[in-house]
Amino acid sequence: MSFDTARLQNMANAIRALSMDAVQAANSGHPGMPMGMADVATVLWSKYLKFDPARPDWDDRDRFVLSAGHGSMLVYSLLHLSGYVEPTMDDIRNFRQLGSPCAGHPENFLLPGVECTTGPLGQGLAMGVGMAMAERHLNALFGDELVDHRTWVIAGDGCLMEGINHEAIGLAGHFKLGRMIVLWDDNNITIDGTTDLSTSEDIKARYRATGWHVAECDGHDFADISRAIEEAMADERPSLVACKTIIGKGAPNKQGTSATHGAPLGPDEIAAAREALGWTAEPFVVPDDILADWRSTGDAGRGISSDWDARLAADEGRGAAYNDHMAGIGDRASMAVEQHIRALAAEPKKVATRKASELALGPLTEKLPQLIGGSADLTGSNNTKTQFTAPFVADDYSGRYVYYGIREFGMAAAMNGMALHGGVTPYGGTFLIFSDYCRNAIRLSALQQVGAVYVLTHDSIGLGEDGPTHQPVEQVMSLRLIPNLNVYRPCDTIETAECWALALQDDKTPSVLALSRQNLPQLRGEGDGGWSAASNRSAKGAYCLRPASADRKVVLIATGSEVELAVAVADELKGKGIGADVVSMPCMDIFDLQDAGYRSELLPADALKVSIEAGSTLGWQKYTGNDGLNIGLDRFGASAPAEQLFEKFGFTADAIVPQIMNKLND
Amino acid sequence: MSFDTARLQNMANAIRALSMDAVQAANSGHPGMPMGMADVATVLWSKYLKFDPARPDWDDRDRFVLSAGHGSMLVYSLLHLSGYVEPTMDDIRNFRQLGSPCAGHPENFLLPGVECTTGPLGQGLAMGVGMAMAERHLNALFGDELVDHRTWVIAGDGCLMEGINHEAIGLAGHFKLGRMIVLWDDNNITIDGTTDLSTSEDIKARYRATGWHVAECDGHDFADISRAIEEAMADERPSLVACKTIIGKGAPNKQGTSATHGAPLGPDEIAAAREALGWTAEPFVVPDDILADWRSTGDAGRGISSDWDARLAADEGRGAAYNDHMAGIGDRASMAVEQHIRALAAEPKKVATRKASELALGPLTEKLPQLIGGSADLTGSNNTKTQFTAPFVADDYSGRYVYYGIREFGMAAAMNGMALHGGVTPYGGTFLIFSDYCRNAIRLSALQQVGAVYVLTHDSIGLGEDGPTHQPVEQVMSLRLIPNLNVYRPCDTIETAECWALALQDDKTPSVLALSRQNLPQLRGEGDGGWSAASNRSAKGAYCLRPASADRKVVLIATGSEVELAVAVADELKGKGIGADVVSMPCMDIFDLQDAGYRSELLPADALKVSIEAGSTLGWQKYTGNDGLNIGLDRFGASAPAEQLFEKFGFTADAIVPQIMNKLND
Repeated sequence: MSFDTARLQNMANAIRALSMDAVQAANSGHPGMPMGMADVATVLWSKYLKFDPARPDWDDRDRFVLSAGHGSMLVYSLLHLSGYVEPTMDDIRNFRQLGSPCAGHPENFLLPGVECTTGPLGQGLAMGVGMAMAERHLNALFGDELVDHRTWVIAGDGCLMEGINHEAIGLAGHFKLGRMIVLWDDNNITIDGTTDLSTSEDIKARYRATGWHVAECDGHDFADISRAIEEAMADERPSLVACKTIIGKGAPNKQGTSATHGAPLGPDEIAAAREALGWTAEPFVVPDDILADWRSTGDAGRGISSDWDARLAADEGRGAAYNDHMAGIGDRASMAVEQHIRALAAEPKKVATRKASELALGPLTEKLPQLIGGSADLTGSNNTKTQFTAPFVADDYSGRYVYYGIREFGMAAAMNGMALHGGVTPYGGTFLIFSDYCRNAIRLSALQQVGAVYVLTHDSIGLGEDGPTHQPVEQVMSLRLIPNLNVYRPCDTIETAECWALALQDDKTPSVLALSRQNLPQLRGEGDGGWSAASNRSAKGAYCLRPASADRKVVLIATGSEVELAVAVADELKGKGIGADVVSMPCMDIFDLQDAGYRSELLPADALKVSIEAGSTLGWQKYTGNDGLNIGLDRFGASAPAEQLFEKFGFTADAIVPQIMNKLND
Repeated sequence: MSFDTARLQNMANAIRALSMDAVQAANSGHPGMPMGMADVATVLWSKYLKFDPARPDWDDRDRFVLSAGHGSMLVYSLLHLSGYVEPTMDDIRNFRQLGSPCAGHPENFLLPGVECTTGPLGQGLAMGVGMAMAERHLNALFGDELVDHRTWVIAGDGCLMEGINHEAIGLAGHFKLGRMIVLWDDNNITIDGTTDLSTSEDIKARYRATGWHVAECDGHDFADISRAIEEAMADERPSLVACKTIIGKGAPNKQGTSATHGAPLGPDEIAAAREALGWTAEPFVVPDDILADWRSTGDAGRGISSDWDARLAADEGRGAAYNDHMAGIGDRASMAVEQHIRALAAEPKKVATRKASELALGPLTEKLPQLIGGSADLTGSNNTKTQFTAPFVADDYSGRYVYYGIREFGMAAAMNGMALHGGVTPYGGTFLIFSDYCRNAIRLSALQQVGAVYVLTHDSIGLGEDGPTHQPVEQVMSLRLIPNLNVYRPCDTIETAECWALALQDDKTPSVLALSRQNLPQLRGEGDGGWSAASNRSAKGAYCLRPASADRKVVLIATGSEVELAVAVADELKGKGIGADVVSMPCMDIFDLQDAGYRSELLPADALKVSIEAGSTLGWQKYTGNDGLNIGLDRFGASAPAEQLFEKFGFTADAIVPQIMNKLND
């Protein structure tokens, strides 16, 4: 053999031992996958993966994504064995226990070296596509000397069977992301049994049909694994390496069956596995020579990362430009829209908020090179493209606008991958209703703490004729339920620009911009002539847009397109001698973070509080209380021109004012 | 030509004229697709589709699904022209207007003859898979004489690019659904431009790789279309017919471009199209001879449907069995669980509600042959299979358990298709968190008014070690926001059986059963020894499980696994001399339908109301008011054993009681 097989075998067995022992200690987890892919992972980490264990955040490292996240003990083993500071052996001992960074599924926010949070199947691979896109984009900007790394993904049958896989590999194939390599754990086993229970697909042929190169290997033959990986590295297309493996390899009585997938092997089988593997060390002990072999896998990376530092330092101008770019957006977002908002204050515009978003994106994309936009085939409807963003295409990765195709879930996951990669800030558009198609990726933006921006237009029955399949009713409120996600629903041009600034300045919290199809009057402007970040009124989530002129009895709380309606209601109430504040609440999530004083000042206990939003009312009671009034829509919409729908469903001052009068006279 | 080409051309042009004129009149809509596929549709309806326009609900009709639902004028034209009672020409004139059944996208609940509601791309085709499955299943039960029809789908590039397409065709290929034929509108155009902007895939090769037969034709050559369809009908695999078409065919200056996709052609282009097509009739007028040709397409079906009636009547036993089966479940659901619940009352069981669901499914699947269950590769975790359901496999379609594979969205859409087909009632399982993956299909269950049942287990942090990627936080509340969806979260064995009975008896409202992974004590039983449908306590959505023994000051409202906790809290409060009712609220949606008297009796104004649910608190204020207390989880969970998580996040009597005491002493 051309390989030191015995050495590699011991290294792989260290992964097997740690995995089976940690799962057993936790009395829950998934030993089958780490044991099955131990040999492949050992070859990858010891021969091909570019990494420096001392610098898990080094920009030019290869990205390693464990898409089959349930096999988390694989990545924990790899990180520990190859010398990352975390996880420690104690962390591994405490696998799946409170406080250990070795969570049931890998979580990027707990452990440096975990590139992304995986477990929801298919999304790891799809995030890998975004990482590979970001890499090529930054390479186009800064060259091979600074940006030159690969994206490696380990995926299982589940990842490949999920619908998102089709979207993800379609993007990768189309964009010719040749530096992406997927190592497929081809073990013929799913939870329910053998794969032939549920699929008859020729996966390799499907990948070839989608523009991928396909290699194959025996996933337990080190030389063959190495050959296949080199074949993949040499091909200019993205590669799938089908690694024929035995799930739970090493557990003599259970290997090759779904029994090893998601449960501890049990003491007897673990003893038998130790025997079969010739592994005599105690649980959580790795013999010194094997550990030394593992630690040496990081040696090459240390030198490579120092060389990279030297190249960065060598050219001062390029280095400064690179560092400035990689520092991200932050406060620059507000600066970029400052003049734009001041101009709007001087010259109001009645446009849809989707158009207002396009107007804000003008200066934003002009001044913030980190922004990479796109749309899932609704560019003209989402208004996501500006003159400053050329298309991102296989021939020219310097472009900053991605035609994602009809792939909402794939787009959102790719955006997560880009944001996690760093150096780019992704935004992407679709209709708000199709947040349903990519909802779990939006959730993963929030869980992973990345600042992706979702531009979700056509945000209510206000889209009109397309009807109930396309009219969001419950989407705005349901997105607000996702922790660490800011859902913005601005009411006019200025609020839209303010919300964009807020969304972009926070790179740990993703945002949704819910935007109208229909035109809306500009309600802001007064006092905004000298706008600056400090005067961003949306920054508290809600504010009093129009104070009651007379004795205030009512507070109207509205968002987006219904703020205009709230103003009309206030005007009618004024005619009846009833004072009503109009509170615009572009972001409920941020409002909830304000101190109690501000919240009760805005929504005082002694006023009748009325929410107006063309969507689900459930949730608004938090602000209006038991005694308030909730104007909304708790049924599906209908197909008709928007104005008729607003009338049909009671979104007119004429329909609302009597309800308020009744409440006041109760 | 072997065809009467001129006749067919006139018939196809009638579709083109109606489509472009209706879109123009509405000043919105999608003319490109109906004009492009007019020739293919004309061949299908006039030569192959089995239908009787007088009986749109005839069981043995072919199913026709317009997956590219934006091209709705195609199906409205076809239904009207071929002689269905609806839509009338006035309905078509009022395309996309309030009150017209010709909505922007086809809606099954507005128009007989529209088999399913489409528009959200990819789902029509995926529902077609479910229809084809239901057809084969009923065929296996009742034979070719009663069940022998095809499922035809028209799909566009968007439907094929969506991730769900991969899942749907994977199922169809695996189950060898040879009676399903997809006519692909292969026009190379998406909204953003030509398809090569976003995809480089060889679609035909992908379908072949997935077990499909692929035919091709010139979509504007009647004889070639016919040849390809016959080729597809002859093949035993499901077929994709790639129909090479020109989008907007007939509009001389705009055809072949995305300009015809989603906007009216405009008066000038319509005039030019009339000229080019030689169509001289006024808008919304179809010349008598052409209309007569169209009406004759229904003639064959009339005879065929009468023959079918005769066959049904011929064998009285078989006919009765068939009719009984097709009548659906209704009241039989409650009868099926009656003995089961009485037995539980006598012998309580402490099990997880997912296990309780399995226990209820025993008698349900035994006694209700309409039930077809399944799981997206989590059979053992969702507890969805019983001894009474054999697998549904390509070799034996009589089975009633579907191994859906790792395809949540495909499963949910297939369930919709089955329910819409009729004769079967589908239920399917996955983890509750992955409702995110199939959310829009659940929404389409609700919009389409079908009684699918989603068995969603592992319903909170109570799943423990798998951690935040797998722990639902916002899912229960967010599903409650979907109109016409009943979300059940039962607390024990008896409530679980009650909720199953309620879910199955309503065939116009889909249901979610949110079920625990962890064991829960049986709280019910007293008074349930003589259980019958009339004593189903869950039927009002909420009820007082444990009345306060002392002076009632507090009402605790809880669901699912937190009802046990509410009982513990009530017990502790009792020790302090504070009376507390424990209200179990298995279904908020149903509770909201009760009269005000019942609601205020259960949740009286003068009591402190406290909600306890291990999920988002937003929404609970509706029941607890401003002054109440909401115990919940408004952040992501963590990876650890369940009991530790409940303690960490404050779900213990010790953590809750002091908060209640503080409130009472406020």
